[in-house]
Amino acid sequence: MYVAERIEEALERALRHCETSSPPGLRAAMHHAVFPGGARLRPGLCLAVAAACGSEIAIEAQADVASAIELLHCASLVHDDLPCFDDAAVRRGRPSVHAAHGEELAVLSGDGLIVLAFDVVARAEINPVLVPKLIRCIAAGVGANGGLVAGQAWKSERSVGLRTYHKAKTGALFEAGARAGALLGSTKDERRVDAWSAFGLKLGEAYQVADDLRDTLDDEENLGKPVGQDMAHNRPNACISLGIDGALARLRKLLDEAIEAMPVCPRPDRVIEWVEHFGARLYPRAVRVSEQPSASANGSRVAADLRA
Amino acid sequence: MYVAERIEEALERALRHCETSSPPGLRAAMHHAVFPGGARLRPGLCLAVAAACGSEIAIEAQADVASAIELLHCASLVHDDLPCFDDAAVRRGRPSVHAAHGEELAVLSGDGLIVLAFDVVARAEINPVLVPKLIRCIAAGVGANGGLVAGQAWKSERSVGLRTYHKAKTGALFEAGARAGALLGSTKDERRVDAWSAFGLKLGEAYQVADDLRDTLDDEENLGKPVGQDMAHNRPNACISLGIDGALARLRKLLDEAIEAMPVCPRPDRVIEWVEHFGARLYPRAVRVSEQPSASANGSRVAADLRA
Repeated sequence: MYVAERIEEALERALRHCETSSPPGLRAAMHHAVFPGGARLRPGLCLAVAAACGSEIAIEAQADVASAIELLHCASLVHDDLPCFDDAAVRRGRPSVHAAHGEELAVLSGDGLIVLAFDVVARAEINPVLVPKLIRCIAAGVGANGGLVAGQAWKSERSVGLRTYHKAKTGALFEAGARAGALLGSTKDERRVDAWSAFGLKLGEAYQVADDLRDTLDDEENLGKPVGQDMAHNRPNACISLGIDGALARLRKLLDEAIEAMPVCPRPDRVIEWVEHFGARLYPRAVRVSEQPSASANGSRVAADLRA
Repeated sequence: MYVAERIEEALERALRHCETSSPPGLRAAMHHAVFPGGARLRPGLCLAVAAACGSEIAIEAQADVASAIELLHCASLVHDDLPCFDDAAVRRGRPSVHAAHGEELAVLSGDGLIVLAFDVVARAEINPVLVPKLIRCIAAGVGANGGLVAGQAWKSERSVGLRTYHKAKTGALFEAGARAGALLGSTKDERRVDAWSAFGLKLGEAYQVADDLRDTLDDEENLGKPVGQDMAHNRPNACISLGIDGALARLRKLLDEAIEAMPVCPRPDRVIEWVEHFGARLYPRAVRVSEQPSASANGSRVAADLRA
């Protein structure tokens, strides 16, 4: 809870940078894109890894860097929702940015959030020599070379491997979150930072499977956006390829593999705790509900496993 | 010419970062956005100021930083041309990015170029403590707080002062170019860097007047985009408010004021030379043509002044 508040404070601090010379409509659209947020998983991951690595940087400065990752995530959601992509009118249970503020301000608020994210890292009260490393790490997570932007652009290609797509579209920013946390943990040994990549990527894969499960099992009110979209649009979904039990087993396995992939660090408990929290968030609500007495044996078992 | 080649090389180097893990369509759209370029005025300004300040950083690294400014300028052109803004099918005499590559890849190539720009600064072979200063300087030039993104967003407001709009839409990136050059010139004194702001802003104002003159006097073939757009869309234009001679005089005055606003530096000739080159570029072709024997007395005089 403490960490979650720090992230919200850092995001508010970031948006305050735009208060003096930003047109009111743009400011409102950027605020709409960021607040109220989702689970803030990616900045939470960054801070958990920083804590695990024994970071001695002030928590406010850590949260500033983590908030940059969330700003980039929010920017990508705004652009993904645009009419030329998903044309989504609803996001997080309320109008998407372009539905509420128009397409122009949706494009510009996404652009503004991308720029703001890098500005926030550059302004963070950290050793300045960390800044280029963090910028490169975060740019790799979101950029055209294997990051979020590449992931979205793979959709415009005639053919793409599913792993390549998911790694860029989902995995790369989890990877960046974990690596940025390791950098904040004053990890001077670059190989140590690299070792956190596999951990982040596994969490990204787990998130993807959970997303497939939610699209299949959840309802629109809880998910905050339409469900059953993968089936409707003939998109790949782990529930279709593996079945629901298979997808749940895969989610569990990926979380275990993430923990196994964790490099040696001073406070591993800080990350394990976060992965458990993450697993509980990922776990689809429909199956959580089925844990009631009427639950299927499978549903209960996996639910218990996930919270173990 | 030497400097111009360095800028092209740096831009090519930047785009090569995206060669390994970027979808081919996205890569092509980003390349289309950057090559062949325009006058590369903003990175040229950055390098001229760095030279004037006696920068001892290797020219390749200086050019990397300067190229980041151009990448951001290119990104803004791609997004400005989108159907929801200017809906421009033509840019630099050939199809705009969305006309050639579709709207999705136009949005994404703009996003990718923004991320790449900050990545390029972070990768530049410069003292790492310069990186946060450069990132903040460049973010101010393009961001939602008084930069390019704010400038474009002012268009969505019911009312805005023309100076506020032009300062954000045009001036801020010239200002950033000049300040970034001063930072590369190892200017440790922050006030010295600040002193280059006024110089950059004057050049931005001059560019705006020249843009108005070109829109009024040039033809589509030379300009590479439709002319007479300000009159057609009832947009403010210095030629309408001041008359053509008045606008030409204002352009000359702004260039003089820019030179006067230059702070003391070891090699002022390097910047003065660049301003003269800049003035010659800004000078509208229609009036250059009118310098022939049939030219009006006014046209000839101002042309001579501009090259003096």
